[in-house]
Amino acid sequence: MQFVRQSLCVRSYSSYTKIRDISEVLIGSTVEIKGWIKAQRFMKERSFIDVNDGSTKQNLQVVIEKEHKKPGHASSVYAKGILTQTPKGQLEVIADDFQVINKCDIDNFPFLARKTYPPDYIREHLHLRPRVSSFASMLRVRHHAAASFHNYFNRNGYIQIHTPILTSNDCEGAGEIFTVKPNNEALLKQMAKENVPIDEAFFDRKVFLSVSGQLHLESMCHGLGDVSENQKSPIHLAEFYMIEAEKCFVDSIEGLASDIEDMMKTVTRDVLNQCEMDVVNASPDRKRGDYSWLDKPFPTITYAEAIDVLNRNVDKLKSPVRFEEGINKEQELFLVSHVEAPIFVVDWPKSLKPFYMKQNQHNPQNVDALDFLTPSVGELVGGGVRESDYDRLSENIMDEIKWYLELRGFGGVPTAGFGLGFERYLQLLLSIHNIKDVIPFPRWAHNCQT
Amino acid sequence: MQFVRQSLCVRSYSSYTKIRDISEVLIGSTVEIKGWIKAQRFMKERSFIDVNDGSTKQNLQVVIEKEHKKPGHASSVYAKGILTQTPKGQLEVIADDFQVINKCDIDNFPFLARKTYPPDYIREHLHLRPRVSSFASMLRVRHHAAASFHNYFNRNGYIQIHTPILTSNDCEGAGEIFTVKPNNEALLKQMAKENVPIDEAFFDRKVFLSVSGQLHLESMCHGLGDVSENQKSPIHLAEFYMIEAEKCFVDSIEGLASDIEDMMKTVTRDVLNQCEMDVVNASPDRKRGDYSWLDKPFPTITYAEAIDVLNRNVDKLKSPVRFEEGINKEQELFLVSHVEAPIFVVDWPKSLKPFYMKQNQHNPQNVDALDFLTPSVGELVGGGVRESDYDRLSENIMDEIKWYLELRGFGGVPTAGFGLGFERYLQLLLSIHNIKDVIPFPRWAHNCQT
Repeated sequence: MQFVRQSLCVRSYSSYTKIRDISEVLIGSTVEIKGWIKAQRFMKERSFIDVNDGSTKQNLQVVIEKEHKKPGHASSVYAKGILTQTPKGQLEVIADDFQVINKCDIDNFPFLARKTYPPDYIREHLHLRPRVSSFASMLRVRHHAAASFHNYFNRNGYIQIHTPILTSNDCEGAGEIFTVKPNNEALLKQMAKENVPIDEAFFDRKVFLSVSGQLHLESMCHGLGDVSENQKSPIHLAEFYMIEAEKCFVDSIEGLASDIEDMMKTVTRDVLNQCEMDVVNASPDRKRGDYSWLDKPFPTITYAEAIDVLNRNVDKLKSPVRFEEGINKEQELFLVSHVEAPIFVVDWPKSLKPFYMKQNQHNPQNVDALDFLTPSVGELVGGGVRESDYDRLSENIMDEIKWYLELRGFGGVPTAGFGLGFERYLQLLLSIHNIKDVIPFPRWAHNCQT
Repeated sequence: MQFVRQSLCVRSYSSYTKIRDISEVLIGSTVEIKGWIKAQRFMKERSFIDVNDGSTKQNLQVVIEKEHKKPGHASSVYAKGILTQTPKGQLEVIADDFQVINKCDIDNFPFLARKTYPPDYIREHLHLRPRVSSFASMLRVRHHAAASFHNYFNRNGYIQIHTPILTSNDCEGAGEIFTVKPNNEALLKQMAKENVPIDEAFFDRKVFLSVSGQLHLESMCHGLGDVSENQKSPIHLAEFYMIEAEKCFVDSIEGLASDIEDMMKTVTRDVLNQCEMDVVNASPDRKRGDYSWLDKPFPTITYAEAIDVLNRNVDKLKSPVRFEEGINKEQELFLVSHVEAPIFVVDWPKSLKPFYMKQNQHNPQNVDALDFLTPSVGELVGGGVRESDYDRLSENIMDEIKWYLELRGFGGVPTAGFGLGFERYLQLLLSIHNIKDVIPFPRWAHNCQT
């Protein structure tokens, strides 16, 4: 025992203050900061160095005397000195200690000082994007938005469930999914069985990457009450995040729509309150988006009404309107601009929605599903009331997911839920056109290097 | 426009109160509840029905008059009535309305009233486990623990990053990972290229499910500061959750250990404060675990010292002690019981740790890595200071992750980080032996049905 205590270390950090936490309160105090050089001006007697540490959009100006070597752009630096205020009110550090932690190889660094770059160029350097101010702002907004959704569900009594990413239930189908097998041929051979293809030997069946945790959420909902999930979903063009929620003892599509409207407004107001400076900095042209939709009620129309509106405005649309084919993105955006608000489309033809949607009471050809459409992205949320009738569900269910049917047989309850595309939400919030620019490390065809 | 407004629905719920929110304050009021029958006693004049809705471990007793049909065990029910208190102080609802929402097919339902079952049996019914009180408690604890880690990082200024689940960087290696391809042969043929195997045509390379987001976190750390992540990691025996964090401008293993100790104590106290009733109910034999470790300092020993302790106690160990092979679980648990506290093991031989760990200043054969060992689970956290020296790192790096090396060349900074096995944390908290019993839907060899 004593032997062990001898080597107990005294644990201490070389401390520094994050730039986010440096404010007028500290004027006159000595502060230590660390970060990267964002811009610099060299004068005769002294130099002015703008430093950013990623904790905020704001740079902090450091004033160094000429005896310090000129540091290179984008280098990482340490500065210690008195915090003062310029006549114009700007905070600055008069450095008495200034050190370069690591120089930047500026000949090969893709981002120069005081220059802005198009998204296509920035995206060529995925691992260096956090060094671009607008992208760092996007990441901070993404963090706040994720936390805000989290808190919203927590406050409203939802239990968070981690649903599996490996599944044998290809519910969405259409070949838009990835299959998975161990990267170990020897192991597969060792596990091989008659009548099971060698690639499937590990799980005895074909296993996919899940694109939705909904069926599993429903299982948890039966017994646990309201549940939510943030699920990574890899499908063709990119991995993306789904925020899914399932509410117990709900059988009205109106109740579900009401929940989604409340969530959208609460979360968005919260994010704007918390980090509006980053929201503006992450948006194209550094302009605040149009959030007037926050103050409007979100109307609801039926699918048939939506098709009717589209048919009466077919001259304003490039794409043909066909009742049996659903509503495409152009048409979604038209509907939103037509009602001048985000809008719920309810009462969908059965054939356009998955098997688990509840048959409509008045029109058995329809189901109690909804799409929630918003400006700039179109469909942001899809959801519905789940079929709780054992017999009706059993007519449409595949053998592999008989377990899902069983939930109805053992004291089933009405549930309703939805999935929100988190990246689409960020695109709406930030007016960012390309989904790859709201994901830290996007994946798409031919692109999975970094 | 008017057309659309006409169909605006009035949105309203059939409301009910969650049992968690029913307290003495509501005595004398009419309450509505919904849930599942957990137990029932039929008397001559009336029946007593215990209802649970998943919002809490507590059941609520509902008293129904004999004119109501006897509901079956495990059925879902609705009750409305005045909340009163029995002479013994128990809350109960005197139902004037009582309805069965859905009967349970009790002949096939695996869980009878007032009976406890061994975990192996419960695990045969993954989709029905939330109906078992102890498992529902585990899920609520899991929810609170995840939220508590989240809040801890948020409070301490970490930015949450969603790192990718698809990666071409097989860093951990050893064939313990899954490969991924689109479930669409036609698409792969269409994308086929010379010199690229057909299975790799989608991404032009072999793509794996990531087991760690650490390298990607470091990329974000350079530019953004401290970052964290909850990453699903599918490896052989089960999908599990890693909670990973990377801190900027840190180059001491002592600082890292200090952070981990603070996090462990803060989060655990928080979870016990928030849901101790569920913690006890989820634990085997419904007994509160031993949390005396919360009040102890966590000592630190070097790897060489740890091996020395083990060598001097080799008679108490079943497994041989070999310096070059690391410390196995039996030995980890021995060290923890030897010092009577969770313990950090630092200063590891280079050969036992990944390539990105920082070379120790005093002993170039060693690296500044740590394992954090706890009672009952052994290694809970692994971490270290990252090699920030460009030249040293470049000697050991594989070609595919040259991007990781580049982080050092463009104003690199010292960073340190760790990964915590979230399920192991829950096993420690709840004294649950089998990792499959702390995961909503575990996957393991031959098991990916539900």
